[in-house]
Amino acid sequence: MARQPIVTLLTDFGTADPYVAAMKSVILSACPAATIVDISHDIPPQDVTAAAFVLAQSALSFPPGTLHVVVVDPDVGTDRRILAGRFSRQLFLFPDNGVITFVADAAPTETLVVVRNTTYLPAGAISPTFHGRDLFAPLAGRILNGLNIAKLGPQPGTYKTLELPPVVEREGRLLGQVIYVDRFGNLVSNITTGAVQQHWPDSGKVVVSCAGQTVGPLYTTYAQAAAGTALALFNSMGLLEVAVNCGDARAALHAGVGSEVIVMEGPAGGV
Amino acid sequence: MARQPIVTLLTDFGTADPYVAAMKSVILSACPAATIVDISHDIPPQDVTAAAFVLAQSALSFPPGTLHVVVVDPDVGTDRRILAGRFSRQLFLFPDNGVITFVADAAPTETLVVVRNTTYLPAGAISPTFHGRDLFAPLAGRILNGLNIAKLGPQPGTYKTLELPPVVEREGRLLGQVIYVDRFGNLVSNITTGAVQQHWPDSGKVVVSCAGQTVGPLYTTYAQAAAGTALALFNSMGLLEVAVNCGDARAALHAGVGSEVIVMEGPAGGV
Amino acid sequence: MARQPIVTLLTDFGTADPYVAAMKSVILSACPAATIVDISHDIPPQDVTAAAFVLAQSALSFPPGTLHVVVVDPDVGTDRRILAGRFSRQLFLFPDNGVITFVADAAPTETLVVVRNTTYLPAGAISPTFHGRDLFAPLAGRILNGLNIAKLGPQPGTYKTLELPPVVEREGRLLGQVIYVDRFGNLVSNITTGAVQQHWPDSGKVVVSCAGQTVGPLYTTYAQAAAGTALALFNSMGLLEVAVNCGDARAALHAGVGSEVIVMEGPAGGV
Repeated sequence: MARQPIVTLLTDFGTADPYVAAMKSVILSACPAATIVDISHDIPPQDVTAAAFVLAQSALSFPPGTLHVVVVDPDVGTDRRILAGRFSRQLFLFPDNGVITFVADAAPTETLVVVRNTTYLPAGAISPTFHGRDLFAPLAGRILNGLNIAKLGPQPGTYKTLELPPVVEREGRLLGQVIYVDRFGNLVSNITTGAVQQHWPDSGKVVVSCAGQTVGPLYTTYAQAAAGTALALFNSMGLLEVAVNCGDARAALHAGVGSEVIVMEGPAGGV
Repeated sequence: MARQPIVTLLTDFGTADPYVAAMKSVILSACPAATIVDISHDIPPQDVTAAAFVLAQSALSFPPGTLHVVVVDPDVGTDRRILAGRFSRQLFLFPDNGVITFVADAAPTETLVVVRNTTYLPAGAISPTFHGRDLFAPLAGRILNGLNIAKLGPQPGTYKTLELPPVVEREGRLLGQVIYVDRFGNLVSNITTGAVQQHWPDSGKVVVSCAGQTVGPLYTTYAQAAAGTALALFNSMGLLEVAVNCGDARAALHAGVGSEVIVMEGPAGGV
Repeated sequence: MARQPIVTLLTDFGTADPYVAAMKSVILSACPAATIVDISHDIPPQDVTAAAFVLAQSALSFPPGTLHVVVVDPDVGTDRRILAGRFSRQLFLFPDNGVITFVADAAPTETLVVVRNTTYLPAGAISPTFHGRDLFAPLAGRILNGLNIAKLGPQPGTYKTLELPPVVEREGRLLGQVIYVDRFGNLVSNITTGAVQQHWPDSGKVVVSCAGQTVGPLYTTYAQAAAGTALALFNSMGLLEVAVNCGDARAALHAGVGSEVIVMEGPAGGV
């Protein structure tokens, strides 16, 4: 545990309702000195894939010992399990629904247990519809106060992971798809910087298309394109992204999660 | 006061404008060690009833001594009074417009005063349109620094409360209505778990309808219904709720605040 | 630096994506004791003018030594400079795109430098699309830990400022325009309280129009107008504002940023 305990929250609760504050009230009651950081509460309702993506892109660079609590949990109240884990010196408490997938892809599993040890489970009533307040938050309080997550239960045999469509190579092209769209309407694909650079060591030679429309060669930054013009670049996550400078690529290209993204050899001469 | 002073904010200011940060700047200037928790700033503009509901569902489980500042205040600048109160060991600073109704229903009044003692009111200019920054925030700072709210003024003779339509029994049915809709489109009614259980000790026998449509028997959790299917359950607030699993009941049932919710004896055999 | 280091963030990143949390992870890794305050992340994408306005209306009353980090930065990755400055005992780290304009108008420049000294720049890889995480946040961490911003580089010769249309006087009228619209739909103009009072020492004599529609005389507070009725008043920022009590003036008057606002002598008798 860090000397100043830090806990992050990632939910699909939105910010208008009392749910997030109810969780914080329980955490602060257990650990008044906790620093609480909102990763996001605006995950689309029940969108485990978006939550998994946002978690992996934000959690791993917090101070070691930070606890990340994820409550995007469409199966709340069923027999789905709650897991606690340690990846890259960060702690995670989450429903066993695949939300840990991209964190586990990026960092070796240091600890992983099923939360089951009744010694550490809350004694009070537990609403079957709000485990965030009645299970996750009290457990977070105990972990912030120093409880070793390894004591929470046994190792799981297996745990759920999300299966994303793979990037495939066909006729010298890389075919991927949009896996995330951000606030700006930027279209984030599953094609990594590394995959492109492995196929084309000179990435100046390639051309990108998205949703059936030619976007163009790879740029370095948004402002290299004229305002309102589409471009492709490697983004800050190490993924190929299609954007519109000072605009919204989702709207301009009528694209979204699942839209095809293709990288191919560009016309002679390149850019 | 808790050793680590905690203050929550509940407003209808939204999160795009400078208003919330202006309040925080004043609070932190008075009390730099304060932990500030946002309950919500996304209360619909001027919706005192929604604010009252969110407040009661989130405030009461904070550490004792937490100060809750509510600025949903359509009558700012008029002669409406500001009140300070203590309910269930929590402190509240709020306009006298009914926003304390559900907190006062849930917890005995330990202290309640009209904020009037000029000794403790801010000395500077007070904008008639932004008491949040110029009155509530400076007062919050003083309370966080240890000022006893009982010194802020005399007890009020009376104070405003909201009048919600009651739940009525007619021909063996309980008739209530939707009083709150959350981010997920879940329809929260004014019918309590206790009222249903008093009428039907075996709640397996009842059927719920909402906005003229039969929803079905009482479930325990969302995922018991097929995805996209409507259900009724007792929610984490102890209220009857109509939801759609992985969907939006407000949209599916064309319902909203004020829609009728009926609990009645189910068909023979039940579920 | 304040004893308890405080840093505010003002971005156009929204609250759904991992970007804000990624910045916070870097800041907390450098300075775990930092108090982080969100001014807003809901600035419209790339809207430097709105960011400049929100910054000036919220930053200047924080405790002295607070660091304000602004990342509304459409030119990220180009040769646009990053500046660090001190105005009114507040510290600022921001792209040189005019976002400091209204702060600099309101407070004398105490320090202003171009961030260029490689001794203090982060050593790691810097994504050309996310300077918020890779440049602003590490620099913020160092400043929170006590680095004097004067060491970050030389004084700039000049720096960018926004040019807003001026308020003009014509035929005894003051002609200005809407420069900001808030969450409530209130229309904030560029006409200051001071300018009106200088022209009409008795402000009871004036009438306001907006977007071609007569609004009426100056009120003191929203609730002086009937619910749903338009009114004009001097707002908490010292600016003339057109609003609709318990309503949305933007919608009711079909107005927005750029709409004309006129103050003129009212009819005999006034209000």
